[in-house]
Amino acid sequence: MLRFREDLALPEPPPGEARVDVLLAGICNTDLELIQGYYPYAGILGHEFVGRVASSPSDPAWEGRRVVGEINAACGACEACQAGRKTHCDRRTVLGIKARDGCFAEALLLPLANLHAVPDSLSDEDAVFAEPTAAALQVQEQVDVAPGMRVVVVGAGKLGQLVARTLCLTGCDLLVIGRSRRSLDRLAGLPLETAADAPAGRADLVVECTGNPEGFALARRAVRPRGTIVLKSTHRGATTLDLSSVVVDEVSLVGSRCGPFAKALDALARGLVDTRPLVDARYSLEEGLAAIEEAARPGILKVLLKP
Amino acid sequence: MLRFREDLALPEPPPGEARVDVLLAGICNTDLELIQGYYPYAGILGHEFVGRVASSPSDPAWEGRRVVGEINAACGACEACQAGRKTHCDRRTVLGIKARDGCFAEALLLPLANLHAVPDSLSDEDAVFAEPTAAALQVQEQVDVAPGMRVVVVGAGKLGQLVARTLCLTGCDLLVIGRSRRSLDRLAGLPLETAADAPAGRADLVVECTGNPEGFALARRAVRPRGTIVLKSTHRGATTLDLSSVVVDEVSLVGSRCGPFAKALDALARGLVDTRPLVDARYSLEEGLAAIEEAARPGILKVLLKP
Repeated sequence: MLRFREDLALPEPPPGEARVDVLLAGICNTDLELIQGYYPYAGILGHEFVGRVASSPSDPAWEGRRVVGEINAACGACEACQAGRKTHCDRRTVLGIKARDGCFAEALLLPLANLHAVPDSLSDEDAVFAEPTAAALQVQEQVDVAPGMRVVVVGAGKLGQLVARTLCLTGCDLLVIGRSRRSLDRLAGLPLETAADAPAGRADLVVECTGNPEGFALARRAVRPRGTIVLKSTHRGATTLDLSSVVVDEVSLVGSRCGPFAKALDALARGLVDTRPLVDARYSLEEGLAAIEEAARPGILKVLLKP
Repeated sequence: MLRFREDLALPEPPPGEARVDVLLAGICNTDLELIQGYYPYAGILGHEFVGRVASSPSDPAWEGRRVVGEINAACGACEACQAGRKTHCDRRTVLGIKARDGCFAEALLLPLANLHAVPDSLSDEDAVFAEPTAAALQVQEQVDVAPGMRVVVVGAGKLGQLVARTLCLTGCDLLVIGRSRRSLDRLAGLPLETAADAPAGRADLVVECTGNPEGFALARRAVRPRGTIVLKSTHRGATTLDLSSVVVDEVSLVGSRCGPFAKALDALARGLVDTRPLVDARYSLEEGLAAIEEAARPGILKVLLKP
C-alpha cells in the first residue's frame, strides 16, 4: 500500500500536465483510512503538498515555480465539468486517492489547470496546508456564515482545527467540541470557546469533523430546528439516522469535500490562519512508515513528510 | 385513538383563539401513522380542514368567515418564535398532532393568528387542500427551483401529487416516480414525465414523498453530486445512510414540513393546482372509521370527511 518514488519510474508529463518535485507533504486522516481499506486505492498515497514545477512541456513558464495543487484532475468535457463542478467530474482522477499517484514521493504529475503559484512570503510549512485549509473554507462556500451566528465544530483533530480557525474569521459565535484537552488547548488565544459537549438544539450551524457515529450524534443533537449540519469527514460504514426528526425539525445535512485553493492561499499568506500549532512531527520520506504510525497516534495532529 | 366531537365538550375559545366549525376535513398519511403509534398523541386527529368561524371573542370580525388554519400554534415568546420560526416554537401545540384536538370533529379551536380567510371563489373541496398544498410549496421556500432544473419527485401518493403539481408551476424538468400506474395516471395532462424508476446521478433536486426506505434509496441514487434531496415525509424508525458518499458527492439533505398558507390559497384560488383528481371518497364524520380504513387502502389518495 505504501510505495516511494524511488521504486517507480515517473513518466514525462502528458500534454497539459506538469511534473512537480515535492518539497513537503502532509499526512491526512484520509491517508490513514485508505491504508485501512476505506476505498480500493493501491497507488502512491498523499494529496497535501507544496512543490516546485520540474517539467512543464505544455507551458514552460511554470517551470521553477513553487506550487500547491488541487487534487481532482477533471476531464473538462463531462456534464459535471461543463456545469462548473470540476471536483465532481465523472471521470476524475484524484491525487493519491483515485487512479493518480500521490505526493508521498519525490515527484508527482498534475494538470497545469490544478496548480496555484505559492506567494514567496509563504513558507513551505504554511503552504503545505493549502489543501486542507481549502477543504475547511468549503464550509463557507456552501453555507453563509454571518457574525453572531451560533456555530459548533465537532472534533478538534487535523480538519476540525482548520475548520475552527477559518470559521473564526467570520465573527461567528464559535464553540469547538473535542475529547482531547490537548487538542482543544491548541486553539488557545482564538476567539472561540471549547468544551466536551454542546448544548442541545441551539446551534445554527454544526460542522461535523470527526467521522465517527458519536460525533454525528452530537452534531444532530446540537443543531437547532431549521439549522444546518455540514459533514466534513467521511464516515466508515453506514450510519443510522432518524429521518423523521430531520423532517420535523427541517434540519439540513450538507456533505462537504474539497474547497477553494485561491482563498486558502490568500488566508494563509495574510497570516489569517495560524497552522503552526498543528504541526506535531516532521519525517523524511525514507521514514514514511514511521511517519504514518506517528500520524495515527491519538492526539497527534499534522505530521509532515520531506522527500 | 379516534374520537368525535359529539363525545367531547369543546370549551369556549381562550383569549386570541377562535372556535371554527369544520366544513370539510382531509385525511393525511400522518393521521394514519399517528393511529399506528408513530407519535404518542391521543387527542382528536385531523389537521387538514376548511371551516367557518363560529366564535371569536377576541376579535368578533372573524365570526362567520370561512377559513383554513395553520396547524402550529406558537407561543410567540420563545427563541424560535422571536427568530420568526413559529412552526418550530419550542412550546407549540399542533392541531390534531400535539396537545391540541384536531379537525375530525364538528369544531376546533385555533389562534386567530393561524387563520386565513378563504376567497369566495374557492370551493370547500379545493380549500381543504390548503394545508397539504402549503406543505408542498415549502419545497420551493427551502430550495430555489428554476426552469429547466432536473427535478424528480419520488412517490405519487397524496403528498407526492401535490408536490408534483406545485413544482410544475416552476417550469422545471419534472419526473415523477411511482409504483402505482393508477396514481401516476392522475398526473396526465401536466407538463411532467412519469416512470417506475429514475436515472442514476442526474437530478439536481429530488423530493422524497414516500417515507419508506426504498423511496429514500431511490432518491439518494437519483440525485447528482452537489444536488439536493428534500425529505417531505416522515420515516418510521431509523434509516441507514452512507454518510461518506454524502460527503464525497457533497449532497444536501433537507427536511421539510409545513409551508406557506397564503401562497397555497393563492395558487388554489387561481386554479394553478388542480386537486380534483386526488379526491377518491367522501364520508360523513359518523362514518369516520370507515373513512380511515378507506384512506389506508393502497392506491387511494384523498378521503374527505364532512361533519
